[in-house]
Amino acid sequence: MIKVGIVGVSGYSGLIALKLLLKHPEVRLTYVSANTTTGKLSDIWSQLRGLTKLECVKFDANVAAEKCDVVFLAVPHKVSMEVTPLLLKKGLKVIDLSGDYRLKNARTYKQWYGVEHTDPLNLKKAVYGLPELFRVKIKKSGFISNPGCYPTAALLGLAPMVSIFTSIIDNVVIDAKSGTSGAGKKASSDLSFCEVNESFKAYKVLEHQHSPEIEMYLKKIAVEGDFDFNFVAHLLPINQGILETIYVHLNEKISLAEVHKVYKRFYHSETFVRVMDLGVQPEVKNVVNTNFCDIGMAMSANGKLLVITSVIDNLYKGAASQAIQNMNIMFGFNETMGLL
Amino acid sequence: MIKVGIVGVSGYSGLIALKLLLKHPEVRLTYVSANTTTGKLSDIWSQLRGLTKLECVKFDANVAAEKCDVVFLAVPHKVSMEVTPLLLKKGLKVIDLSGDYRLKNARTYKQWYGVEHTDPLNLKKAVYGLPELFRVKIKKSGFISNPGCYPTAALLGLAPMVSIFTSIIDNVVIDAKSGTSGAGKKASSDLSFCEVNESFKAYKVLEHQHSPEIEMYLKKIAVEGDFDFNFVAHLLPINQGILETIYVHLNEKISLAEVHKVYKRFYHSETFVRVMDLGVQPEVKNVVNTNFCDIGMAMSANGKLLVITSVIDNLYKGAASQAIQNMNIMFGFNETMGLL
Amino acid sequence: MIKVGIVGVSGYSGLIALKLLLKHPEVRLTYVSANTTTGKLSDIWSQLRGLTKLECVKFDANVAAEKCDVVFLAVPHKVSMEVTPLLLKKGLKVIDLSGDYRLKNARTYKQWYGVEHTDPLNLKKAVYGLPELFRVKIKKSGFISNPGCYPTAALLGLAPMVSIFTSIIDNVVIDAKSGTSGAGKKASSDLSFCEVNESFKAYKVLEHQHSPEIEMYLKKIAVEGDFDFNFVAHLLPINQGILETIYVHLNEKISLAEVHKVYKRFYHSETFVRVMDLGVQPEVKNVVNTNFCDIGMAMSANGKLLVITSVIDNLYKGAASQAIQNMNIMFGFNETMGLL
Amino acid sequence: MIKVGIVGVSGYSGLIALKLLLKHPEVRLTYVSANTTTGKLSDIWSQLRGLTKLECVKFDANVAAEKCDVVFLAVPHKVSMEVTPLLLKKGLKVIDLSGDYRLKNARTYKQWYGVEHTDPLNLKKAVYGLPELFRVKIKKSGFISNPGCYPTAALLGLAPMVSIFTSIIDNVVIDAKSGTSGAGKKASSDLSFCEVNESFKAYKVLEHQHSPEIEMYLKKIAVEGDFDFNFVAHLLPINQGILETIYVHLNEKISLAEVHKVYKRFYHSETFVRVMDLGVQPEVKNVVNTNFCDIGMAMSANGKLLVITSVIDNLYKGAASQAIQNMNIMFGFNETMGLL
Repeated sequence: MIKVGIVGVSGYSGLIALKLLLKHPEVRLTYVSANTTTGKLSDIWSQLRGLTKLECVKFDANVAAEKCDVVFLAVPHKVSMEVTPLLLKKGLKVIDLSGDYRLKNARTYKQWYGVEHTDPLNLKKAVYGLPELFRVKIKKSGFISNPGCYPTAALLGLAPMVSIFTSIIDNVVIDAKSGTSGAGKKASSDLSFCEVNESFKAYKVLEHQHSPEIEMYLKKIAVEGDFDFNFVAHLLPINQGILETIYVHLNEKISLAEVHKVYKRFYHSETFVRVMDLGVQPEVKNVVNTNFCDIGMAMSANGKLLVITSVIDNLYKGAASQAIQNMNIMFGFNETMGLL
Repeated sequence: MIKVGIVGVSGYSGLIALKLLLKHPEVRLTYVSANTTTGKLSDIWSQLRGLTKLECVKFDANVAAEKCDVVFLAVPHKVSMEVTPLLLKKGLKVIDLSGDYRLKNARTYKQWYGVEHTDPLNLKKAVYGLPELFRVKIKKSGFISNPGCYPTAALLGLAPMVSIFTSIIDNVVIDAKSGTSGAGKKASSDLSFCEVNESFKAYKVLEHQHSPEIEMYLKKIAVEGDFDFNFVAHLLPINQGILETIYVHLNEKISLAEVHKVYKRFYHSETFVRVMDLGVQPEVKNVVNTNFCDIGMAMSANGKLLVITSVIDNLYKGAASQAIQNMNIMFGFNETMGLL
Repeated sequence: MIKVGIVGVSGYSGLIALKLLLKHPEVRLTYVSANTTTGKLSDIWSQLRGLTKLECVKFDANVAAEKCDVVFLAVPHKVSMEVTPLLLKKGLKVIDLSGDYRLKNARTYKQWYGVEHTDPLNLKKAVYGLPELFRVKIKKSGFISNPGCYPTAALLGLAPMVSIFTSIIDNVVIDAKSGTSGAGKKASSDLSFCEVNESFKAYKVLEHQHSPEIEMYLKKIAVEGDFDFNFVAHLLPINQGILETIYVHLNEKISLAEVHKVYKRFYHSETFVRVMDLGVQPEVKNVVNTNFCDIGMAMSANGKLLVITSVIDNLYKGAASQAIQNMNIMFGFNETMGLL
Repeated sequence: MIKVGIVGVSGYSGLIALKLLLKHPEVRLTYVSANTTTGKLSDIWSQLRGLTKLECVKFDANVAAEKCDVVFLAVPHKVSMEVTPLLLKKGLKVIDLSGDYRLKNARTYKQWYGVEHTDPLNLKKAVYGLPELFRVKIKKSGFISNPGCYPTAALLGLAPMVSIFTSIIDNVVIDAKSGTSGAGKKASSDLSFCEVNESFKAYKVLEHQHSPEIEMYLKKIAVEGDFDFNFVAHLLPINQGILETIYVHLNEKISLAEVHKVYKRFYHSETFVRVMDLGVQPEVKNVVNTNFCDIGMAMSANGKLLVITSVIDNLYKGAASQAIQNMNIMFGFNETMGLL
């Protein structure tokens, strides 16, 4: 049993993290805190009535240090880089769900998040928590930067291709579609039911802050060579789920059967990545409320365009359940514990 | 051709009123104004691009008086009772879509809307704009208080029964369900997509401000006798549409066939009320984007409970298109003009 | 560890039962069968890939008897009364999710389900599996008839009132709204996305087959006196969830505070029934994917109408998770095992 | 006033065509027929009650010839090529909404639709009814093949670029998303509410029958040069609307401002195509129930990828209202008549 704390509970990722931690057989949830919303958890989230009597208190790093072995941060970016150094200094393990420590370069961070990075030291130390690609580093680390939702689906969808066939990739375009919970739980007329329901749109076209995150880690796993990368986000009128249609333009022919074999082998021992049979497309509904990533593929007749489809639940594999998976790895638990 | 103005365009009722007025063959839209949101209509509502070059200006009663024969008010309650007396004093005809002039008693108004009524004089003069019940008065009036959405479905659903069989009614309970546009277009976390979608709830149970409005006009059309009345509202995860299931408890048996005949006769010459055949239930989708009200009915085996179902589009027959219907009557146009 | 089998897996209740049984710490799923759909479970339900390698075989009572201690039936009505006697004869425990054994009277069954009951003997023996009301009988029984979805919400919502205050109840009307999964997974133009989405309707008005089920068990728990009962069903454009607005007309005044106290006490030791604080209304989203039933209430100003709101997930507490709860009780497991 | 007939009314395109024709000031709807569904229109579509007393009769080419000047075909493909030659032989004008006469080559037709084309003669004669591109031919023609929904959005989105800058286009990928009405109104478990709602998927990846249609007409308007073309379709959980994100890979730099200017000029006199201001993305909700196509654009930082977004209502501009627009052109009416 480990003692686990969380900072930030009023957003959707925080809620899912709470629900998963409350069920986890090796976790005792000892500290729930936030900067603004405090009080009984069952008052903050009506669905938690009967599941916990915990109260959310105002965040205090000293108290966190006394009560916890590890702390999850489900706070907005900017807040995370204020809280994280306080916790790390106390010797706590930290799993940060925000975007603050994903871009390993303070300049890039400023360019995409619009603010100066105030904790560049820890920025270097953070390990990117995508277990299927960086499990060994995660195991040794005390500070995990949990991947963004779009990057999770993108990197898992592209990893086998990029890490094995970099040289034949001409360019990659990702057409990504996300459920509305990805925008968080805020009062905004644009996100009101009648504005989102029965509609669909692209947003932050070619300018989404997850774009450099994807590109950075793609380049990290690429063997050699280089390729152009572009990313377009869309807003789906559903609560949870991401589907990314990934267009890999090739400068050399390769058969779909060969690509498929490589993907099957790459993810052979991964519980949470399911490579579909050829001819079958993944669907959002099959991964909602799970830690799974489902991947499908197709090839154009002339063999020059590979189309990969990758689906996850943005709040689970794209946020909270992946954070738990990271915790399982860090503490030597069975990686699927509390997640199946 | 009449010259028409509108005050208030940032809400959904205002948008629908604009769209209907722009299409109406006898209307020239000469004045579009608001208190806060101003600028090109096509900037305020992207869907109006290409349909109009009109600009929304800051409201000024003098300008309105110069430019208009009649003015629609699609402003929130409280604002309406500030604007209305200014316009009436100028001799303009007014059709008010807000709740400010529906309750004919300033005390009742204060009780349900929580503020003092500041224009009790005009409160008396306002004619309640439900054409199927009060057409003659509407025709003669220069000031129409357009009914609320719930009251429109309720009163049309109950009018034949209440005006003919009052004495055998023991009590009436309305279980009402409304699409989310009924809550208006405001930034609110409670009305955000993820909070409304895939959910359903009752709200303002027995305390909705439309309850006294329904009761007041029911009593007005009742012949004799009295009955208890209760009203419960629910929020549907759809954009537009209201369905009210109306439970009429009877203290004397009556056959469903007889009730049905009475309803058919009552609405025989009404274009916009469609009484369904026995055995057929009305559905929201059949009235969306129209001025229709569809009515169905059933009777319990022991003949003591009549169940009436009444559906409308809350933004059309429950607001904007009914307002146009009132305008058509006031100016002697064909009542269906611009509405079919 | 007990050995559990299931018959019927192609419907939504079967799917949820499978998912819950696969996770249950005291269950070994040893036998999955059906009459028509056979093959790998992960081919029948794509979301089960990676979770099980089980195959669904053609049903055979002898094989079931060899492999199982208890069998869940997630087959349509009519099929259930063919399969059940075969299994009971072999000495197996049976939990039937269909409607075949809920109405304890073969004549009533024929009247509402339109077919002759072919197993009247076992009809008498079946215990109605609503744990909060009939836990002691369930514990001793080897054959459970799992309640319908509407009856579960209705009976839990009414039980304290009806079992304690029968004499002051004049009549009860239930206005029930259900998500579309309640209609099952069948190819039907009426249930196609575009016909259900953005619409709402009443159906089987006063004629739903769950109506006599509710009435029968209400009368069973009533102390004395009698009251009229009526039930109207509506189709919600959501996947999962039921909300019932229950109108209890009273012939004697009672305070809301007193009713609330009675409800709190009645469900004091029940994990899965959550009585809301006064002033708070239950919402479907808070119970989706759970075994909870949330109950709220309000009273009319004149104290003659009590409005109870009761919400459940029709596929969980209204079907599959309640069946697991019954199994837990039958086998002496912790009642919440596998359900929180 | 012209006399208009329609064959096929049970699908969504047929319904919208009916509604538009009933409102059109220059149209008398004289003949409504079908092969299977017959009877009162208001029984086939409940929402048409009160709008028409017309009956749908079994199709007979002789009767059609007597009663009509022009006939709309809203029948499935295969049926259309049986009916069309009968009508053309009688000298009637025909506007066909099916896919039967869009691919101008019988062999390509067979390849994508899986059946032999039985009317190759008229296949040559059919004029492709995309008014913004082929207005002059439409005006002179007596037989219009109305474009598919995906091709309408694709061709309008690409026409300025392809017809002016062909030589700098390296390849085009269309990532298309359509509302569920595009799949028609059929009883299918895959299209049932619970299977589509809260989900999202790609389908017929690189194999959609609209792909060759788009490619054929793109090549027709291209000036010189050639480029690869690929098309992927997705199913949106909304009723109506298509958004296509069109990726135009360039082999030569061009500024976004220049592209935008070209688009503005190209569509300068087109009422139904609205080119958005730079920085603004089109949204499905702004074109639903209209004949508009809204187009937005963005450019990658390195100037090698142009992203065009194009939205329409698949049942309106993608089917029925575009058919009316074609009729208006054929008969010399104002092109926007009955459509604004």
